[in-house]
Amino acid sequence: MSAGGAAVAARIEPSARREHILAAAEACFVRNGFHRTTMQDLAREAAMSPGNFYRYFASKEDLVLGLAEGERARGARLVAELERDGDRRAALLGIVTRYFVSITRETAILRIDIWSEATRNPAIAAMTARGEAEARSWFVETFGVLARSPACDPVALYALLGPLMKGIVVDRALLPDYDPAASVAQLLALLEAGLDGRLPLAPTSSAEPSR
Amino acid sequence: MSAGGAAVAARIEPSARREHILAAAEACFVRNGFHRTTMQDLAREAAMSPGNFYRYFASKEDLVLGLAEGERARGARLVAELERDGDRRAALLGIVTRYFVSITRETAILRIDIWSEATRNPAIAAMTARGEAEARSWFVETFGVLARSPACDPVALYALLGPLMKGIVVDRALLPDYDPAASVAQLLALLEAGLDGRLPLAPTSSAEPSR
Repeated sequence: MSAGGAAVAARIEPSARREHILAAAEACFVRNGFHRTTMQDLAREAAMSPGNFYRYFASKEDLVLGLAEGERARGARLVAELERDGDRRAALLGIVTRYFVSITRETAILRIDIWSEATRNPAIAAMTARGEAEARSWFVETFGVLARSPACDPVALYALLGPLMKGIVVDRALLPDYDPAASVAQLLALLEAGLDGRLPLAPTSSAEPSR
Repeated sequence: MSAGGAAVAARIEPSARREHILAAAEACFVRNGFHRTTMQDLAREAAMSPGNFYRYFASKEDLVLGLAEGERARGARLVAELERDGDRRAALLGIVTRYFVSITRETAILRIDIWSEATRNPAIAAMTARGEAEARSWFVETFGVLARSPACDPVALYALLGPLMKGIVVDRALLPDYDPAASVAQLLALLEAGLDGRLPLAPTSSAEPSR
């Protein structure tokens, strides 16, 4: 057997191969969008023959779903890694900073694309909803553990910080002058005030007439 | 001349026809996404022949740009309408509520799609940047007029509320349990606290080392 690409490829585990393809697909999608990218483009980026490529992913939709699952799993792995030493506060600050604020423009673009696909594709919507539910329950639990005042309402605090973190991702993708340091500082200032019960938070099981 | 569709069509002003096409395109795009929609789908939705349709918009890109411009103009018109009676406070609350929070799921999806396109298309990016700059300058000026305390920093307040409003648009599109009343109440509570100078806001020309 030669030492060429095919021999190298043959030694790669299927799960590693899937990761390799997903990384190549992410680069392609971010550059051109899901819809301008063809399966042929993706096989070329992954340095695979189209036939071999199709054995791993049968459609672009499967790849988008794989990327959405990867995004969700990335958040869960980061939580597990940061919680390993038992410091909930450090884990919270790490997640806010690394998963939402100090991300690359490419990661932010991919998240917006996944949101866009989730509005039309039920499988991607289900994956996104699962990620949202996991995030919400982790944040609410963590806020509860770290609250320094009975006036801190963890559910109401997430109802504020959840959309704020998503909006920061949008700004990251869109604004040429996006400043991660300023966004981190802003988010942490709100977080601290929220844990102290000093933020004006709307009640979460509201019956406001302003609808 | 018959009283049929063609005769009716002939009496429509070109600008009204453009509006009609853009409304039809918006419906198509929201349903299927920009990329799954063909020019033929769009002509059919607008009840026009493809030949006639192309006289108004030469490409899907032109239509997306037209929709992005329409979104921007919609915000500007709403501002002008709400400011007509001179009550800046009512105008601010109206914009926050009507342009960002109490929007339809379809409008929210269209905005996410436009953001996604803006990351790849320079003309759409320029239009989106223009809308962002207009929004920022209007909000900062209005916060300055309405501030009730020298501790209110209008630029810092927009640095918080700008991304929060974008994130609310994302939640509107994605969350099945999205509650506009709760989002309005939350945003207004923050706004009032910000105008009173009671929000913990990070300084806007920051030199934090946390980057």
